[in-house]
Amino acid sequence: MKEVILAHIEKKELDVLKELLRNSEEMAIIQAFYELPDDELVIAFRLLSKAAALSIFEELDTDLQKKLLKSFTEDRVKLFINEIAPDDRVKLLDELPATVAKQLLESLTPQERETTNLLMGYEAGTAGRIMTPEFITLNRDMTIEQALAKIGVQAEHKETIYTLFVTDSSKKLEGVLTLKGLLIAQGTKAASIGKTDGSSRIGDIMSKNAISVSTDTDQEEVARILHELDLLAVPVVDREGRIVGIVTIDDAVDIVHEETTEDIEIMAALTPSDKPYLETHPLRLAKNRIIWLMVMFFAAMLTGGILDKFEYAIAAIPLLVIFIPMLCDTGGNSGSQSATLIIRGLAIGEVTPKDFFKIIWKEIRVGLLVGTGLAVLNYLRMMIFYGNHDIYGDNIIMISVTVCLTLLFTVVTANIVGGVLPIIAKKCKIDPAVMAAPLITTIVDALSLIVYFSIAMWLLGDLMV
Amino acid sequence: MKEVILAHIEKKELDVLKELLRNSEEMAIIQAFYELPDDELVIAFRLLSKAAALSIFEELDTDLQKKLLKSFTEDRVKLFINEIAPDDRVKLLDELPATVAKQLLESLTPQERETTNLLMGYEAGTAGRIMTPEFITLNRDMTIEQALAKIGVQAEHKETIYTLFVTDSSKKLEGVLTLKGLLIAQGTKAASIGKTDGSSRIGDIMSKNAISVSTDTDQEEVARILHELDLLAVPVVDREGRIVGIVTIDDAVDIVHEETTEDIEIMAALTPSDKPYLETHPLRLAKNRIIWLMVMFFAAMLTGGILDKFEYAIAAIPLLVIFIPMLCDTGGNSGSQSATLIIRGLAIGEVTPKDFFKIIWKEIRVGLLVGTGLAVLNYLRMMIFYGNHDIYGDNIIMISVTVCLTLLFTVVTANIVGGVLPIIAKKCKIDPAVMAAPLITTIVDALSLIVYFSIAMWLLGDLMV
Repeated sequence: MKEVILAHIEKKELDVLKELLRNSEEMAIIQAFYELPDDELVIAFRLLSKAAALSIFEELDTDLQKKLLKSFTEDRVKLFINEIAPDDRVKLLDELPATVAKQLLESLTPQERETTNLLMGYEAGTAGRIMTPEFITLNRDMTIEQALAKIGVQAEHKETIYTLFVTDSSKKLEGVLTLKGLLIAQGTKAASIGKTDGSSRIGDIMSKNAISVSTDTDQEEVARILHELDLLAVPVVDREGRIVGIVTIDDAVDIVHEETTEDIEIMAALTPSDKPYLETHPLRLAKNRIIWLMVMFFAAMLTGGILDKFEYAIAAIPLLVIFIPMLCDTGGNSGSQSATLIIRGLAIGEVTPKDFFKIIWKEIRVGLLVGTGLAVLNYLRMMIFYGNHDIYGDNIIMISVTVCLTLLFTVVTANIVGGVLPIIAKKCKIDPAVMAAPLITTIVDALSLIVYFSIAMWLLGDLMV
Repeated sequence: MKEVILAHIEKKELDVLKELLRNSEEMAIIQAFYELPDDELVIAFRLLSKAAALSIFEELDTDLQKKLLKSFTEDRVKLFINEIAPDDRVKLLDELPATVAKQLLESLTPQERETTNLLMGYEAGTAGRIMTPEFITLNRDMTIEQALAKIGVQAEHKETIYTLFVTDSSKKLEGVLTLKGLLIAQGTKAASIGKTDGSSRIGDIMSKNAISVSTDTDQEEVARILHELDLLAVPVVDREGRIVGIVTIDDAVDIVHEETTEDIEIMAALTPSDKPYLETHPLRLAKNRIIWLMVMFFAAMLTGGILDKFEYAIAAIPLLVIFIPMLCDTGGNSGSQSATLIIRGLAIGEVTPKDFFKIIWKEIRVGLLVGTGLAVLNYLRMMIFYGNHDIYGDNIIMISVTVCLTLLFTVVTANIVGGVLPIIAKKCKIDPAVMAAPLITTIVDALSLIVYFSIAMWLLGDLMV
């Protein structure tokens, strides 16, 4: 057995090995485990099914258990596991049994924990990746005094003692209780001494509908739950409902910072980076920026193509060119205003895809108001600056009307596009933040140029013959 | 006295009344207070100096004290105070004495509290505006048992019992203590019974260097302190160091959400609004958007003016126009990428104004990398699309070089402008978020158009005669 395992690991045939282990006798595996070198031991262990992993782990003697847990931090093993594609990794590595996960987490420093999560099978950005094992569990049959005594003894070594988790003998989460609730219950009991038998149990005072998340819950969702339910800590459970760790409210602040930074970066057409700006190499920064710039460079060819088609109009009335940057900028800015409000609204839950038509209707009204305001301003400005432009004479009024109508159209369109695209993205499970300023600018530029020259041909066709 | 006070309030001569009250005998004021109608009573009270307010409040009988506190919620009074300009309000209304503030806060519902803060003199976005009075204070001479007993009794009615505040008889903050620390101390004591006299005092175990903020500390700063020092609650004190309220960590999450929403909105050239999108009237939304659009509309006149100056170049080589949107878009997008990284870096403290030259040097390198990449891409594209354009013949190479050089210049300039402007804003105490995409787009547009036509005249001057 030992040789077969070693051979498969050597050849990186992990799926074959996984299949083999699933069909082997437990005793044979345990036998092989005692003979395997540390690195191969942990790899083989991670390929076991969750149930087998648990029962085999419990069969091993304490020394081998410790050796196994220690191997999770071995650089060679991490490199090996890192080479597997992330989606294969999810398929290959079953969930770690709660008891093993907790023991492992407790034996590691926070830094080691961060790097070991890879091997534990928790993907980045999930509850499993940020949870801590330092919490206090109580038993439903404990009295208030016993609970307080346990808290007093363990307090020093736990991250929080303010939320207490009640579990059964198999570590399944049965309820939660705050320390505040516990102290209030103690106070109530003290006040009613003599009337009751004075022995209320944790099971009677705990809240039975404990809110929990699972190891693969998205960290953004975890932060939302902590914040909205005003919790100091939320328990993280495995598939069978066993508690593996907790995430605390101060982590939520970190998550909110991290997630909004990511959103803001995506909105500015940047590939998000998790390293601080000053520590990022220029080559890396350039890579993060150029990808989207290239996408938008090609998109801008569209705008160029439109101008190309109307070259004759430009040659006939060069004055038209002067207003192109103003029209494009105003369109881009209006669209980005709408998109920003909707993207942010979606992120903090103020807006949902159900509000689709409400948003369109609102954006049309806002667009008409803003567009009319800017159009009037533009008309006045054009009359003052070009009103007695000798080349264009009376045609300047028609040219002004062309610019003003396009401006109104551009603002309304930009508002609708900016309001609608993030919602569509959300519906299609794309990050709405992608639909921000840069992309919308390109779309709105193209639309407004087409409209600009179409109106120009309609109103000023005579000048272009 | 009563008539004089009424007359001044009637005529809205609050500064005269304030001066008068400062120079009056305390007994005369108290006498007048008993005769004043409720609304005028609270206005006169708020005009007293802090010291006078405290001593007069303590002289009043409980009924009048209650009447006074109740008047803080009167709509007429709020309207009256609201009419004063905010900076005058700060000058006129002295800080409220801690005892009065706490009693007032406790007598109000959270909703009432929100609207009363105006009258209390706490400006929006400060610790005073978001603090709660529901905290537990201990005394340094209490024993651990006495402290635990007090917590047990008060727990139910306090927002948090996990951070405890130790004050002297005048409510001055002397130290803080966590419930965890208290329980650990109790455990230690229990373990060492017989060895010590068993009567350790709160004063011995509290932390004497209590971190606190004042009522006018910016809420963003409060959130930063809570987060960075990993606190569950931070005390808010008045000028004399008396504790008035606390701000808890779950408020920090709200603040972070609120402040980043504000930043994101300013970055998109929106006037920030504190009402959810769907509940904001289109007229209000239009107003929030049009102000910046108008500013940028006028800024875009600059770009128009530049194009106006080069009209003859456009008439001679209409092909040049085709690349204007691409150049402007790429410049705007690059600038917005840099600005976003720096604005966000400043907001979360990863970047400081001291990094000014580091940022410039980094942005130049990134700009050269990205600009060169895009320029090469653009050269290939122009050769493919216009390489055998019959009108331009061999000149197409020179035209391509013009566009590519401008593109490189634009990206580098945009990066520098985007990286530097937020830092300069921060230095000038302007919100760096103002220096985002829209403003930078306008600046970079103007610069790159000037460079575009300058290079064109240099390389293609022959075609323009």
